[in-house]
Amino acid sequence: MSAGSLFDAPLSVVNVGLDRFLAPIRAHGADAVGVRWRPPERVPLPVSERRRLEALTDVPNRRALDRLLTSRPFLVDVRPAREVIPELADGLILHAGPPLDWEEMIGPMRGAVIGALQFEGLARDAQTAEALAGSGRIRFAPNHHHAAVGPMAGITSASMPLWVVENRTFGNRACANLNEGLGKVLRYGAFAAPVIERLRWTADVLAPSLAAALERHGPLDLTALAAEALSMGDELHNRNRAATSLFTRRIAPSLAATTPHSQTLREVFAFLDGNDHFYLNVSMAAAKATADAARGIDDSSLVVCMSRNGKEFGIQVAGRSDRWFTGPAQMVDGLYLPGFGPGDAAPDMGDSVITETVGLGGFAMAAAPAIVRFVGGSARQATDTTTAMYDITAGEHEVLRVPGMDFRGVPVGIDVVRVVDSGILPVINTGIAHREAGVGMIGAGLVAPPADCFADALASFRRQPSSDILDRMIE
Amino acid sequence: MSAGSLFDAPLSVVNVGLDRFLAPIRAHGADAVGVRWRPPERVPLPVSERRRLEALTDVPNRRALDRLLTSRPFLVDVRPAREVIPELADGLILHAGPPLDWEEMIGPMRGAVIGALQFEGLARDAQTAEALAGSGRIRFAPNHHHAAVGPMAGITSASMPLWVVENRTFGNRACANLNEGLGKVLRYGAFAAPVIERLRWTADVLAPSLAAALERHGPLDLTALAAEALSMGDELHNRNRAATSLFTRRIAPSLAATTPHSQTLREVFAFLDGNDHFYLNVSMAAAKATADAARGIDDSSLVVCMSRNGKEFGIQVAGRSDRWFTGPAQMVDGLYLPGFGPGDAAPDMGDSVITETVGLGGFAMAAAPAIVRFVGGSARQATDTTTAMYDITAGEHEVLRVPGMDFRGVPVGIDVVRVVDSGILPVINTGIAHREAGVGMIGAGLVAPPADCFADALASFRRQPSSDILDRMIE
Repeated sequence: MSAGSLFDAPLSVVNVGLDRFLAPIRAHGADAVGVRWRPPERVPLPVSERRRLEALTDVPNRRALDRLLTSRPFLVDVRPAREVIPELADGLILHAGPPLDWEEMIGPMRGAVIGALQFEGLARDAQTAEALAGSGRIRFAPNHHHAAVGPMAGITSASMPLWVVENRTFGNRACANLNEGLGKVLRYGAFAAPVIERLRWTADVLAPSLAAALERHGPLDLTALAAEALSMGDELHNRNRAATSLFTRRIAPSLAATTPHSQTLREVFAFLDGNDHFYLNVSMAAAKATADAARGIDDSSLVVCMSRNGKEFGIQVAGRSDRWFTGPAQMVDGLYLPGFGPGDAAPDMGDSVITETVGLGGFAMAAAPAIVRFVGGSARQATDTTTAMYDITAGEHEVLRVPGMDFRGVPVGIDVVRVVDSGILPVINTGIAHREAGVGMIGAGLVAPPADCFADALASFRRQPSSDILDRMIE
Repeated sequence: MSAGSLFDAPLSVVNVGLDRFLAPIRAHGADAVGVRWRPPERVPLPVSERRRLEALTDVPNRRALDRLLTSRPFLVDVRPAREVIPELADGLILHAGPPLDWEEMIGPMRGAVIGALQFEGLARDAQTAEALAGSGRIRFAPNHHHAAVGPMAGITSASMPLWVVENRTFGNRACANLNEGLGKVLRYGAFAAPVIERLRWTADVLAPSLAAALERHGPLDLTALAAEALSMGDELHNRNRAATSLFTRRIAPSLAATTPHSQTLREVFAFLDGNDHFYLNVSMAAAKATADAARGIDDSSLVVCMSRNGKEFGIQVAGRSDRWFTGPAQMVDGLYLPGFGPGDAAPDMGDSVITETVGLGGFAMAAAPAIVRFVGGSARQATDTTTAMYDITAGEHEVLRVPGMDFRGVPVGIDVVRVVDSGILPVINTGIAHREAGVGMIGAGLVAPPADCFADALASFRRQPSSDILDRMIE
């Protein structure tokens, strides 16, 4: 299945927000239903309250923004997950989004767990795997609790290889599994034999080759690579063609030097050539290493994590890093592969929205007008989307810039105060999984977080003692 | 020397035309002198005359445009030049631009000839080479007379490997030598030992590897690749980073399969990684194969060739394919490498303007706002440049499109009637060579052709019997 086939079928589009997207879709003859974009429960802030919050968060937010802007992630290694996160060797499996148990997991996440248990050799078939997953002998935790991220279901198990990214400015590390390609893949809930076989090849052939090549090459500057990719039409979430091409070109001499078998090298290059999304997981690990550097700054209202597990969309805020603020996972408005429609879709899922958290993905849409085209939109709409995101962010990146906006830096540092006060929600580019285990990817599109999580995060600032202190100082 | 160093030095800019470029350059603190853009000897066309010419050329131009738009160049081979153009084995050397003799050649073209004769083993040093070049035993002819193109000096000799491109729609073939990288390279007139050594490595190692890989891969669709590159920030003349990356990624599996020695493979990938302009010469061969398909259509006023030899800028027109219409080669307005300035520059030179001839390069500037940034301009100016080119062209490409202009097709089919009538000259992106033999590249920028060649080409239509016949038909 090619990604292109997604756009060959008659379209039924549900559009959430930004009414301008609707008209061109209808003009192209597709069915399109509009859903309002503004958060359903916007919390209006009185001017005095907004000023109080701004005064409280101003200095902490500058510190957090500075961390986000000065982070410099480098790709340093590819290692089996158990070597990076030792708890994985002991019956732990990581998943996307805020915490949830097996019983709460939606179909595609269950499918990915079923596949992972087979891949690990802990279950011989899907039925056994399902029984084991629900037996209590397997523990589950969010990737985000282990400095990790994974797209869609985000299932990370002990034998999977992980990209290891180091934030050279602050010393922290983050990791992400390797991208499998599109279609019937584990992260979308598929677990048939070819899915497991591809995971094995990734662990046994691809990862060791990349690890050896990367060791020879030396740490790869991912900020520089991302800046190049942004000037080549990627937004580094749903479009990673330039970054994948640049990565391949850069690592190729080292791969040639360190891969002893010609057949292996050919397979590795063929996989890199055939997977335009290969760089996504590197982009995610870089974003995670960046966002984590801004955690633990008291009273900062900047978002350091957005993620969804298929049930809930959760955010974490720099000044309240240990807490998840959640709301119900939304449905993605997008385009479907032939034979599928909105009724088949699982709710929004995955850690990949970590890219939006640091100013990429939907926030950098202006860099990737080719994405907007697929929903019948115009280049102007791509620019409008990025422009709107400046209203809810604290700053602009100095290295990651958008050529078509005269190299304006991407919007960085989502501020829950600004989100609630403006009623503008982050725009997220994402994929769509089938709601049942075992099927896989069925589409791609745009989604907004639930407004609740931002309102709740803000409320936590309004009830804190530090706010009370500030109240007294001002009055 | 890196291309980046070009932009580290204090700038002295000469800007020809488009006044809007000046202000931002000055605002950035650089010296900038403006030179008027409109052709100095614009030939005003009376309305009746313009209508007569349009009536004469309408049907032929549609045919020529159709040839340009439906051409589909495929990369099919890499071969030693003598196997593609047998006359080269017999003392012939090809050069860029319209015909000229050794005595007329400017410094950098002479430098490239001196280097080529040493590379061929026909001279042991520069002095011997220079004597041989002027002895009458070496014949010179334009690349364009042999379905070939070469950037800058464009020197093509028997032992150089050539890309071979086949236009699948019309069956014609075109070729171009392989790109050497930037800096001290033969095409900019350098001929020191490392230049010759790189040419030998290219012929002995790189070309056979690429030929074997391409044979395994099969013909490569260059229209599809160019369309991808245009959506990734290339204009395929002065910016080929995306195309080079895509090409590398696509050919890598075959290279791995067909290159027996790991060291060779590493060298080939390192060269591809280090040369962002590697794809330029493929782009040129594809453009040549496209433009040649529109030759020989009686009474068509569309341009099928633009090229310069350092003395003259020449064009050829579909309805007068055997004739060169020339004017004096202009000076390029651009930016210089540290230590060099306009006083060091050779006039405009090279066959690379074949890319503009088919709608790329300056004509596709809107796809590559990163280029405009280097002269202090804005993304809007990139769009304005492409927009202006629609005024002098007959149509728009259906596959080669610009994402930032809502995927409008690039402007194709330069019509001498429109050029003369509008006074708008083609915009060309190009490199700058030192005026003396042996130095090399010193900068890059924009240039316009002399207006004379368009006026002369048009005049040839006004004196033709077919026009007289049409005159009588209309009156």
